[in-house]
Amino acid sequence: MKFNQNFNDVSDNYLFAEVAERVAKYTAENPDKTVLKLGIGDVTLPLAPEVIKDLHAGVHDMFVKSTFKGYGPYEGYAFLRDKIRGYYSSFGVELDNSEIFVSDGAKSDLGNILDIFSADNTVLVPDPVYPVYVDTNLMAGRKVIYADANEENGFLPMPDPEVEADIIYICSPNNPTGAAYDREQLKAWVDYALEKDAVILYDAAYECFISEDNLVRSIFQVAGAKKCAIEFCSFSKMAGFTGTRCGYTVISHELERDGVSANKLWLRRQSTKFNGVPYIVQKGAAAVFSEEGQRQIKANLEYYKNNARLIAQCMDELGIWYTGGKNSPYIWLKCPNGMGSWEFFDYLLHNAQVVGTPGAGFGKNGEGYFRLTAFGSTEVTKEAVERIKSLLK
Amino acid sequence: MKFNQNFNDVSDNYLFAEVAERVAKYTAENPDKTVLKLGIGDVTLPLAPEVIKDLHAGVHDMFVKSTFKGYGPYEGYAFLRDKIRGYYSSFGVELDNSEIFVSDGAKSDLGNILDIFSADNTVLVPDPVYPVYVDTNLMAGRKVIYADANEENGFLPMPDPEVEADIIYICSPNNPTGAAYDREQLKAWVDYALEKDAVILYDAAYECFISEDNLVRSIFQVAGAKKCAIEFCSFSKMAGFTGTRCGYTVISHELERDGVSANKLWLRRQSTKFNGVPYIVQKGAAAVFSEEGQRQIKANLEYYKNNARLIAQCMDELGIWYTGGKNSPYIWLKCPNGMGSWEFFDYLLHNAQVVGTPGAGFGKNGEGYFRLTAFGSTEVTKEAVERIKSLLK
Repeated sequence: MKFNQNFNDVSDNYLFAEVAERVAKYTAENPDKTVLKLGIGDVTLPLAPEVIKDLHAGVHDMFVKSTFKGYGPYEGYAFLRDKIRGYYSSFGVELDNSEIFVSDGAKSDLGNILDIFSADNTVLVPDPVYPVYVDTNLMAGRKVIYADANEENGFLPMPDPEVEADIIYICSPNNPTGAAYDREQLKAWVDYALEKDAVILYDAAYECFISEDNLVRSIFQVAGAKKCAIEFCSFSKMAGFTGTRCGYTVISHELERDGVSANKLWLRRQSTKFNGVPYIVQKGAAAVFSEEGQRQIKANLEYYKNNARLIAQCMDELGIWYTGGKNSPYIWLKCPNGMGSWEFFDYLLHNAQVVGTPGAGFGKNGEGYFRLTAFGSTEVTKEAVERIKSLLK
Repeated sequence: MKFNQNFNDVSDNYLFAEVAERVAKYTAENPDKTVLKLGIGDVTLPLAPEVIKDLHAGVHDMFVKSTFKGYGPYEGYAFLRDKIRGYYSSFGVELDNSEIFVSDGAKSDLGNILDIFSADNTVLVPDPVYPVYVDTNLMAGRKVIYADANEENGFLPMPDPEVEADIIYICSPNNPTGAAYDREQLKAWVDYALEKDAVILYDAAYECFISEDNLVRSIFQVAGAKKCAIEFCSFSKMAGFTGTRCGYTVISHELERDGVSANKLWLRRQSTKFNGVPYIVQKGAAAVFSEEGQRQIKANLEYYKNNARLIAQCMDELGIWYTGGKNSPYIWLKCPNGMGSWEFFDYLLHNAQVVGTPGAGFGKNGEGYFRLTAFGSTEVTKEAVERIKSLLK
C-alpha cells in the first residue's frame, strides 16, 4: 500500500494553527492581558429566531413517525432548493432546481468538486489566496500557477491572455483581501475562460456583504458564465451557519464539454460519496429565505458591516492603505512602517493585544499585509480599533 | 479543461434508481395494489426521545449568544469523541480521542478516505459488494479486483495468499449479504493485510446488529488490526440517523508506513476539505451513549431484529437458502427455482407486490440472489412475509 505522495507537497502548518499557538503562548505568559481577536473569519452572533424556530420544527419532525425523515435526496430537499432558486431569481438569475446542490458548506464542495476534473488540468489561483484552493489541488497532484494580486491592481488580478489555465479560482468579495470584482472585471474573466476552454470555480461565500450597485451577487449575472462557471455559496456568513453547516453549489446544465455535463458528473460524484445534508439543518436553512428570516439575517449582517466600517474608518484616519471593509467583512491592510506580516502580527499582539491574520499566510504577495475581520462583537471591535489607533498614530 | 475521464468507467445507473423506476412504473399501472417495500436499507422508526431532547438542547444553544457555536473542531467535539471512546472501551478497545474522527456518515468517509492513498494501489473488494466501494475507486482510476463471495464460502470470502492487494474492503456484518465474519476469520484477514503491507477499510456500519458472542464489534478487537485497519462507523443504523447524518472513523496512530501516519494524513485531508459535523447533530449523537439513550436505541434495534427474524423464519419454512437475518438487518436469499435476480424482482413485485433488491445489482456473484431488509414496520414485514409464503410455498 502506498499513501498519496502528493500530500508531501502540502505544507504541514495550517495558518490558523500557527496563529492560535502564538496567541496561546502570549496568553499563558501574560495572564493579566485581555486579548481581542479580529483574526479568524468566524461569526459570533447566534442564529436568527426564525432559523431557530424551524430547526426546532425539524427536530420535532424527526420525533414523529409520520414526519420522520430517513435518507434525503443527495442534492437537497426541494423545499430548500425552491427557496434558493427564488433567491437567485430575485437578482435575475433563473435556475432549475436540478442545477442547485445543497451541501454541508462551500469548503467541502470547493474541495470535492475537483473529483470531476482530470488531474492533468492546470489550476490558476490568485496570490494571496484562501489556502484551501491550493492545498486541495496539490493533494490531487495538479499544477498550480498564480495570478499576482497586489497594491497596483487593488488585489484584483485580471486575466493575462498569455497564461494558459484550465481551472480558475475566483473568490469575490475576496477572502482574504476583501476586494470585490465589478461586473466588467468578471466579464473579462468569463470571456477569458470561454476563450481558454477553462472552468471558473467561483466562491461566492461572501456575496451577502455586497452593498454597492456595480457588483454582482452571482457570477451567473454575467453573460456566458453559465457555460464556464460553477458557483459555491454558503449560509455560513449569510446566516451564521459556520457551526450549523449548510451551503449550496450551482452548476448550470449549459456547462459541458464534448457532450459531457459537469452537472451530471457532480450528481454522480455526490450520489456516490455523499448522503446529503441533515434534514434538520435544511429546515433551518430554508427559514433564512422567509420574509421575517431575511429581515433578521440582514440585521445581523448590518451589525458585522458596521464593525467593518469602524475598522475601515480607523485605517482611513491612520492613513493606512487597505482593501475591503465595504463589500466584505475583511479589511486587508498594508502593514505600517514596512513591517512584515508576522512581524506586525507580533507587534500588534504584544503592544495592543489585538489578534489579526498575517497576510503572508495566504501567499507570497500577502507578505507585508494583514487581515482584520468584522466578525467580533461591536464592543470588541471598538476597543480593538481604539488600541490600534493609540499604537499606530 | 478536461473532465476526469475515469468517470467513464463508472456505470451510470445506480441500482436503487432502477428499482425505484420499476416500482414507479408498476404502481402507476396498478394503482389499486399496495406495494410493500423491503428494499432500500433505510430506517423507519423516529429518533429516540433522548436524542430528540439533546437535539432541541443543541438548537437552543445556537440561539443564545453565550452558548452559540461557530466553526467546531474538524474532528468533532470532545464531548462526542469522549462518548465514542467510552463505547469502544466497553468492548475492550482502548483509543485516544485523536484516533476518532466524527463524520457526516460512513459513506462520505469511505469515499473521502481514498484521498490519502495513491492512485496506484490495487483495491480488493468482495463480489457482491456495496457499489460505493467500487465506484469511488474507479473514479480515482484505481484497479479494482474481486474476491468471490458465494454459496460455498457462505458469502464470506477468505484471503487468497496468491492475490496481491493494497487496499482491502471488508464490511461485516455485510451489506448486502448480511453475512458476518467471526473473530478467527477476521484474524486471517488482518494477518494477510500485515503480510501484504495492505490496509483494510473496515465498514462496521452494521455492528449494532451483532448478537452472537463469537463475533467482534470492532476489527480492533483483533490483534494487529490497529497497524493495518481503518474502521468506519455510523449512527445511521445504530440510532436511525440516516437523515440526521453522523458517523465516525477510527484510525489508530499505529497505522503508518515509512514513518508516515495515516491518522495525520486524514486529519490534514479533513482540515482542508471538511468543516466538521453540525454542532446540533453532534449533541444528538452524544445522547445515543447515555444510559437512557442506549436503552431506547436498543429497543429500536430489537424491533428491526425481530423483523429480520420474521423474514429468516419465512425462508426457513420455505427451505430457501440465505445468509444474514441474525446479526444483520439483511436477508440475502437464493432466488427460488433458479430465477435470476431481476427476474425474481419482477416476479415478486408483480405477484406479491413486495419490493426487494436484486442481488445482481451488487456484482456478478449476486446474480441469482436477492436482498430483503428488516427496516420496514413490523406490520409491513409480517404482511410481506405472508405474501411471500403464499406465493412460493
